[in-house]
Amino acid sequence: KDFHVERMLSESTSRKSIALLGHLEGADADTKTIVYLEKKPFVSEAIADALSSEPTPLTRDFNNAEYTVYSMGGAAGGLGAVKCDVIHPATAKHVVKYTKHEVRVVRETAEMYAKVTLPYIEREELGDRIKWVHNILDKKKESERIMLEDTDPKDGFIFLPDMKWDQETTSDLYCQAIANRRDLPTLRSLTSEHLPLLRNILKKGCGVLESKFGLKSHHVRVYVHYQPSFYHLHVHFAHVDTEGSIECGKAHLLQNVIDNIELRGDYYQTVPLTMTLRTSLGLWKAYESAGGLPVEGGG
Amino acid sequence: KDFHVERMLSESTSRKSIALLGHLEGADADTKTIVYLEKKPFVSEAIADALSSEPTPLTRDFNNAEYTVYSMGGAAGGLGAVKCDVIHPATAKHVVKYTKHEVRVVRETAEMYAKVTLPYIEREELGDRIKWVHNILDKKKESERIMLEDTDPKDGFIFLPDMKWDQETTSDLYCQAIANRRDLPTLRSLTSEHLPLLRNILKKGCGVLESKFGLKSHHVRVYVHYQPSFYHLHVHFAHVDTEGSIECGKAHLLQNVIDNIELRGDYYQTVPLTMTLRTSLGLWKAYESAGGLPVEGGG
Repeated sequence: KDFHVERMLSESTSRKSIALLGHLEGADADTKTIVYLEKKPFVSEAIADALSSEPTPLTRDFNNAEYTVYSMGGAAGGLGAVKCDVIHPATAKHVVKYTKHEVRVVRETAEMYAKVTLPYIEREELGDRIKWVHNILDKKKESERIMLEDTDPKDGFIFLPDMKWDQETTSDLYCQAIANRRDLPTLRSLTSEHLPLLRNILKKGCGVLESKFGLKSHHVRVYVHYQPSFYHLHVHFAHVDTEGSIECGKAHLLQNVIDNIELRGDYYQTVPLTMTLRTSLGLWKAYESAGGLPVEGGG
Repeated sequence: KDFHVERMLSESTSRKSIALLGHLEGADADTKTIVYLEKKPFVSEAIADALSSEPTPLTRDFNNAEYTVYSMGGAAGGLGAVKCDVIHPATAKHVVKYTKHEVRVVRETAEMYAKVTLPYIEREELGDRIKWVHNILDKKKESERIMLEDTDPKDGFIFLPDMKWDQETTSDLYCQAIANRRDLPTLRSLTSEHLPLLRNILKKGCGVLESKFGLKSHHVRVYVHYQPSFYHLHVHFAHVDTEGSIECGKAHLLQNVIDNIELRGDYYQTVPLTMTLRTSLGLWKAYESAGGLPVEGGG
């Protein structure tokens, strides 16, 4: 078509879409046109054909051991550009990692936490599994990445960029605060005793983001995960425009956690928490064995 | 490459990615390879060139008034396939709709709700703005779409598929329950008096999804929005695999809402709620005028 682009209205790098404002060739200057482009999903039935039949020049971008990354389907700015990661040889672990995760909704009462979740955490998730966190706190690893450190043993924490953030643009900023205390595995551990720690993390974490990147606190989503990916209190700081793991049933805004504890000191020891769980996780299996899975009304 | 696909491991229609397990030509049967393909984002600087220079056969799929939908960049199963929506002529409203929404994090105390939010809702969002909801409840519109109706004036509701759901596959199921009562604009209105209504919606809504689609309740995310897009109590039922508006700071799991009210009957009249707000909304402007925007610690 004879479409002349005037400006971009919006784009999503995760959805692979872009909205453009412009005008058609020959139209008068006031008659505008919007063109919204979104790449189509791969069609699983047709993918083998598409891979073998289409003219797909491959460029190797990167190689490290079993991982190789290619670009294919034309120039980077072209419409058909595709990123292609090849893992060879692929182990069973790789297969699990790339296989779709089944997710279920589970309601955890305080009783189920005491009976199933906490014993599971103490048995399977502490000790060596979180040694890498202690290495960071002990400055054995990643000390060059630390952006802020508050050494107070009770209310202090270490603040550093998340591995997933390239530290190049602030619109996808993603950092973590890791508490110095080692006795707080999850949200369920938090009581009014920990309010000074939580307020300190919220205030100083937002302070760093403002002084280093000019980001105001109302541009930042500050949250904890329940269930978390590792069982040592840590807080996520992400730009509001990012689309990470921020879904209800997993992410809890830190300000709301503080407000809940102020309302009732034992809120997180009392309230049932409804959460999403991957069926591939050990905790899901522990719930299954304990007969803790709801048949209805669990949503 | 000479890659033979054995099976698909996972795919994402929103991210436009697919992971395939297979083996390379000539490799022994036990040596597997994973190929992960993800379409690259549009490059905004290069898009004008790509649109004009690439060979992009256009197929018109659909036309309705100012909306036309094309397919471009090859066959549907091809790597370069792109969906192209053209809006012509585009009005200022269209431009706003397609322009990126700026989002901010705001903490709403009970006092701010009484002083700013509720007066804004009563002034701007009730009356004619929700007439379309009353039309559904009065059976003047969409009555052929109703999947379940409980006519009890206090605890009853109407259950119907959301407009966004094509009703073809259950893995992206999305339905809504709309309460018969007209005096509950938001989450902030809910007290222990409304527990029978909330439990009724959760139980019967999950019941319909199980009897009609065989979906168990732990496959369904049931939630309310705060702020909602319209101010009449309604509950979203979505398959856990969907990625709609489920982010913390906006979505609240209904089971957790019930549990909070059971813990404390006036929970939602008391606790501060931290939420994300679009700056293009009237409520954001009401907050600005009232000086209700936090400078720090609002995350």
